Amino acid sequence: MITHTCFATEPWRLRETSLDLGVLAQSESVFALSNGHLGWRGNLDEGEPHGLPGSYLNGVHETHPLPYAEAGYGYPESGQTAINVTDGKVIRLLVDDHPFDLRYGELLSHERVLDFRTGVLGRTAEWTTPSGRTVRLTSHRLVSLAQRAVAAISYTVEAVDGPAGIAVQSELVANEQLPAASGDPRVAAVIDSPLLPEEHHAHGTRLRLVHCTASSRQRVAVAADHLVEGPAGTSWAAESEPDVARLTVTANLAPGERLSLVKFVSYGWSAQRSLPALRDQVEGGLAAARSTGWQGLLDGQRACLDEFWADGDVEVEGDAQVQQAVRFALFHLFQAAARAEERAIPAKGLTGTGYDGHAFWDTESFVLPVLTHTAPDTVAPVLRWRHSTLPSALDRARQLGLAGAAFPWRTINGAECSAYWPAGTVAFHVNADIAAAAERYVFATGDHAFHRGPGLDLLVHTARLWRSLGHADADGAFHIDGVTGPDEYSAVARDNLYTNVMARRNLLAAADAVALHPDRAAELAVGAAEAADWRDTAARIAIPYSERLGVHEQAAGFTDQQPWDFEGTAEEQYPLLLHFPYFDLYRKQVVKQADLVLAMLTCPDEFTDEEKARNFAYYEPLTVRDSSLSACCQAALAAETGHLDLAWAYTREAALMDLNDLEHNTRDGLHMASLAGTWIALVQGLGGLRRRYGAGPAVLPPGAGGPGEGAEAPVRFAPRLPATLTRLAFNVRVRDRRLRVDIGRDAARYTLLEGAPLPVLHHGTTAVLDPQAPAELPVPPAPETVEPPQPKGRAPLT
Amino acid sequence: MITHTCFATEPWRLRETSLDLGVLAQSESVFALSNGHLGWRGNLDEGEPHGLPGSYLNGVHETHPLPYAEAGYGYPESGQTAINVTDGKVIRLLVDDHPFDLRYGELLSHERVLDFRTGVLGRTAEWTTPSGRTVRLTSHRLVSLAQRAVAAISYTVEAVDGPAGIAVQSELVANEQLPAASGDPRVAAVIDSPLLPEEHHAHGTRLRLVHCTASSRQRVAVAADHLVEGPAGTSWAAESEPDVARLTVTANLAPGERLSLVKFVSYGWSAQRSLPALRDQVEGGLAAARSTGWQGLLDGQRACLDEFWADGDVEVEGDAQVQQAVRFALFHLFQAAARAEERAIPAKGLTGTGYDGHAFWDTESFVLPVLTHTAPDTVAPVLRWRHSTLPSALDRARQLGLAGAAFPWRTINGAECSAYWPAGTVAFHVNADIAAAAERYVFATGDHAFHRGPGLDLLVHTARLWRSLGHADADGAFHIDGVTGPDEYSAVARDNLYTNVMARRNLLAAADAVALHPDRAAELAVGAAEAADWRDTAARIAIPYSERLGVHEQAAGFTDQQPWDFEGTAEEQYPLLLHFPYFDLYRKQVVKQADLVLAMLTCPDEFTDEEKARNFAYYEPLTVRDSSLSACCQAALAAETGHLDLAWAYTREAALMDLNDLEHNTRDGLHMASLAGTWIALVQGLGGLRRRYGAGPAVLPPGAGGPGEGAEAPVRFAPRLPATLTRLAFNVRVRDRRLRVDIGRDAARYTLLEGAPLPVLHHGTTAVLDPQAPAELPVPPAPETVEPPQPKGRAPLT
Repeated sequence: MITHTCFATEPWRLRETSLDLGVLAQSESVFALSNGHLGWRGNLDEGEPHGLPGSYLNGVHETHPLPYAEAGYGYPESGQTAINVTDGKVIRLLVDDHPFDLRYGELLSHERVLDFRTGVLGRTAEWTTPSGRTVRLTSHRLVSLAQRAVAAISYTVEAVDGPAGIAVQSELVANEQLPAASGDPRVAAVIDSPLLPEEHHAHGTRLRLVHCTASSRQRVAVAADHLVEGPAGTSWAAESEPDVARLTVTANLAPGERLSLVKFVSYGWSAQRSLPALRDQVEGGLAAARSTGWQGLLDGQRACLDEFWADGDVEVEGDAQVQQAVRFALFHLFQAAARAEERAIPAKGLTGTGYDGHAFWDTESFVLPVLTHTAPDTVAPVLRWRHSTLPSALDRARQLGLAGAAFPWRTINGAECSAYWPAGTVAFHVNADIAAAAERYVFATGDHAFHRGPGLDLLVHTARLWRSLGHADADGAFHIDGVTGPDEYSAVARDNLYTNVMARRNLLAAADAVALHPDRAAELAVGAAEAADWRDTAARIAIPYSERLGVHEQAAGFTDQQPWDFEGTAEEQYPLLLHFPYFDLYRKQVVKQADLVLAMLTCPDEFTDEEKARNFAYYEPLTVRDSSLSACCQAALAAETGHLDLAWAYTREAALMDLNDLEHNTRDGLHMASLAGTWIALVQGLGGLRRRYGAGPAVLPPGAGGPGEGAEAPVRFAPRLPATLTRLAFNVRVRDRRLRVDIGRDAARYTLLEGAPLPVLHHGTTAVLDPQAPAELPVPPAPETVEPPQPKGRAPLT
Repeated sequence: MITHTCFATEPWRLRETSLDLGVLAQSESVFALSNGHLGWRGNLDEGEPHGLPGSYLNGVHETHPLPYAEAGYGYPESGQTAINVTDGKVIRLLVDDHPFDLRYGELLSHERVLDFRTGVLGRTAEWTTPSGRTVRLTSHRLVSLAQRAVAAISYTVEAVDGPAGIAVQSELVANEQLPAASGDPRVAAVIDSPLLPEEHHAHGTRLRLVHCTASSRQRVAVAADHLVEGPAGTSWAAESEPDVARLTVTANLAPGERLSLVKFVSYGWSAQRSLPALRDQVEGGLAAARSTGWQGLLDGQRACLDEFWADGDVEVEGDAQVQQAVRFALFHLFQAAARAEERAIPAKGLTGTGYDGHAFWDTESFVLPVLTHTAPDTVAPVLRWRHSTLPSALDRARQLGLAGAAFPWRTINGAECSAYWPAGTVAFHVNADIAAAAERYVFATGDHAFHRGPGLDLLVHTARLWRSLGHADADGAFHIDGVTGPDEYSAVARDNLYTNVMARRNLLAAADAVALHPDRAAELAVGAAEAADWRDTAARIAIPYSERLGVHEQAAGFTDQQPWDFEGTAEEQYPLLLHFPYFDLYRKQVVKQADLVLAMLTCPDEFTDEEKARNFAYYEPLTVRDSSLSACCQAALAAETGHLDLAWAYTREAALMDLNDLEHNTRDGLHMASLAGTWIALVQGLGGLRRRYGAGPAVLPPGAGGPGEGAEAPVRFAPRLPATLTRLAFNVRVRDRRLRVDIGRDAARYTLLEGAPLPVLHHGTTAVLDPQAPAELPVPPAPETVEPPQPKGRAPLT
């Protein structure tokens, strides 16, 4: 619970007021900087002490054989692990020959600040050496949002109480020693010394290292240059070895004198380009950084973030922690995506090596929905990354005996590397999640070029997968058997409802897309009969429902399963997967994470309001939230079904997952999906933002659906505040407009900030927003409800 | 198809008339000798060429970590692999400095004969050296059935066409080089150089090696002594190194002169006993062997086998191949069990390292039923082995959150080492199979000491497992969810019918046992309420049945699954598990091996005759027989439902599995269960031998159930011959009697060879057999039936 010990609650920044080595690893995650291409964990400048040193380039990974004691057909043979690349952030300091290490001497003060508007991590420290000399240290670090190859550090040391002999060693370090991996199977396997040296260079104030991975043959180049400022007598020398390049600056500081340096670092990697090409690339990046200069980089950072906040800020009145948390969340989401540019957004972004640096469905189902409405320009590149892996997905489907594309459950390079098929291969819903993300993006932005290009490919090949995966029974109902839905405490089920409704949506979206782009459809050999079959199949998809209980079933037969013995389960037996065998979890009614509840969020029009209420009440006492993906979904449906205080409790859990380290693994990196969940809980939950299905075309033909045309379906809101809040306001991008929604206890005000008039559905009332006239609409009182209980001991955290 | 190329069809022996190196590895399996404690593959005396060198001691194994790319709770961490122990059968020969190797020079003749009545493997060969000298070689090899530590070889070489300088090297060789393991996941992992040398010794004609395994810390000692006979000038010398001990005998033979040696070998192993103790043990065994002498060992062998054949011979008139095959099968089953003595019977016996040398449910469900009726004295020791592993099974159940005992799916030392839980951990039926084997043994022998001792422990702890594994639904039906039955192409199902009816039988047998032995029950804290609950649970167990189709379901919902596309499956795509992913097999109607059909064999009174016929007709077209366990069960039910020619075809498939290498993996060892299946198909199938359930107590109280008392349930037979056969006769042990059943086309004759009068049910007619008066009863004609088809391309082999 690091918030409680050393973090200050402030609306626009995360400030650590003292240093607690016990939470150092967590702090490295929350203070991580990234632009989606390059990520630096918030390691101390001097490198040690550390929890986990981390410098990552999106896509750089090593491959390794996946071991199986008993192998099976179609098991992936090769694993992928994101590696710690050359560390460009190390700046070691010696004061009168004492290495600056917070574990020795006396730390008089230490503060770190991550500012969500400047995008800079600042640090100040005052330290007295074991021999009694005090220095003051200031550093500012950024990973440039404007220049994707570039990171930079401004570093200053000042003598305080007497003359000090100072040596500053600014380094590039490859193959840093990493701590041993945890025994928790969910934590990344660490690969030691993954980088083979190819070239090292040091001259003047410039450093460069080039390495290559052994198996994946990815070349990584890093270069650095420095501006040095110090009193007379300041001198420096550069040197290099295969795994380290170092600029050593020495100076004798009188009290009050300072030694400063600015370190520009440029990164590049490629599995294709030659050593000279890559060398030139990083030198070019470095030249650009020098030319921009430190102040220019700061300005660029600020400009990018100003634009982001204008599109997507969320204001929360009544809970300062959540106010801070939602901005922390949005900041990190934006960082993870800003310059990812046809690479994945891993489950941990570029903040740590949890889950081996793999991307999952989290990206399309949690992260992209938020970015679609807050930073839509970052979304298409991520979807284009998925599209670029289509050849792997087509191969994988063929290998599995299926048509279309089967995208991987977890991957870096597009090939499946999930070694446990019941929760990997057969979690086919990832395909519908990808299709939905593509369709959602087009719905929100009207990006028709994307829709007729990669979007259509994604929709068609995933639709074909569903058609071949399922089968019609004697009565014509279409069943999808042997699949695993989002809830990983059930597996290999018949007719997982989430999967089925998402598959339906996928089939219909594909049919809509081919109707809109017949020429492209012809290229993919989609004829009228195939598209008609998709619609027909969508209409016949089985939706499991228990007449006895009057609720939907998570999968066929789910409600007939034995209930889990929650009363007999001790608190320390969570997460259950570490204390009970899969077979026992699978055969009983216990839900790891929102599954049917998520279906009600992603496919709201498949359920009546009454069904939503009954379903939520049924599944809530079965859901243990052993996944960080759950709380936000439960928040959204709790809000929709009128349990506003419960919605708020779940909102807080989602929001504080990393700041309060609720799952005790923030050290491995931030939970991108839970960060996204903060926004989902607030905007989709309390704000009630939903897409309406079946109330107008999902994707408007080019030219149609312009300003206020009748064809356009209204965007739905249903805002209501929990008792804690006095106000919730957010900017949101939707249907190519920019909107502001300002929700008070009694009324909500909708302002169209940018774009053509837009129909909005507010608690069942339609209003057409006009740029000139904000609409203020009353918030009806919440219905009387009885809040469903959670399993014993599993009430919302925080 | 080795039978067709070089094996002669003879009733009492297996004779190889020429040497085909292409089938060398298979021939090593079929010519393997064993006594259940020690096994020698049929490797050539001179060691090379070989398919797989193999010397095994039952229970000797090495452990190794089981790798998981994604581990899970309760996954076994340690694997076990049977190892090739010190080879005591190597006798190398040099003729005029040419090593005798069949790949060089000229092989004039070569014959090997395994005699099922003498228990000796004989070999004769005439060979001309590359330089033109011809020698004649004769060897006889036995693994003693009477002296379990002992094996022996009589070896003679004779100069034929001129003087020959002869050197014979009789060796003990440890850590033989093994061929690389196959890529087939079902074939054993081979562990290289598993033996660490501890002691080597050579003196006079005596040799000794002692080794120890690195991880399992099992000490293996082997000693040999020799009797040498040769012309004047014959001399010898012994020497030893850590991994080899060697007696070299040299002689110059004139034409017609012979050099002979008898090699006695004694083996011992222990994980407990010290090096000196084990050394003394093997020297003691050796002394005993010398004292018995070669002829004495031959006599002992013959005596053991005479007794076995008197109890269990099967005569088949009309198919000479099957006549040979059934004796081959019974011989190998007897070899595998004779002196196993509280060790397992592995799936391959001691004939190869297939399946890592593990024992499965095959033992209790296929091998023991045959031995129970042919060599019952061998059965209790095997069941005592299971009982000795009860502590592991109790631990495993606890780990899985269950009561009672959960015996392993595959093991050597009693700990689970199945690394794939859907076909390991949750194949809980192995527990009912063990209970059934114990109960069956007591039923057949009246061994009340076993019943009130280890039998009761096994029955009670497995009953408790079932009670905790299942649960009652709202209507009171007892369901067992999340389990895998015998069919490995379905998994993690609800209410697998085989499992459920076997669990019912288990619960009732436990309740009967505690009623008979209340004092022992009290020791296990089984009160009246618990036993009553077992009976009540047994009565309420769910039996899945499709009203729509009028057939039982293999598991709940099975008949609603999508049918497998047999028409679209090519012949080379079998076995399916090597060409299709598990999830696709699991979710479709395709049956690897008899499952429901096996239930009809093991629990015949759970089904009416009509249900058996309909069920067999339904499942036959779905069953692909990708397991060698299947054909015999299908044979038995085909016979019972009147498809006599189909029954015969399956009998042949089971019988010729190894002789004809039908699954192309006899090289890895013999299929013990399929060997047993030969007897099952003939005696239970065509003979119709069944236990009646519910028609009298399964186990009679001591003193009761003696000669012809009314309490005793009749033993059921329903003999009928297929068109091919003119006669089928077998001796069988049942209810502590010895019976002979002689079946002709029109009548069957029952003779009580030994024991008190016994009621027999013959095609519905009860006759009480009296020692004085054999009963001859007419065989009614078979009903008219329509033979169900097999899946495309999956007709019975042979």
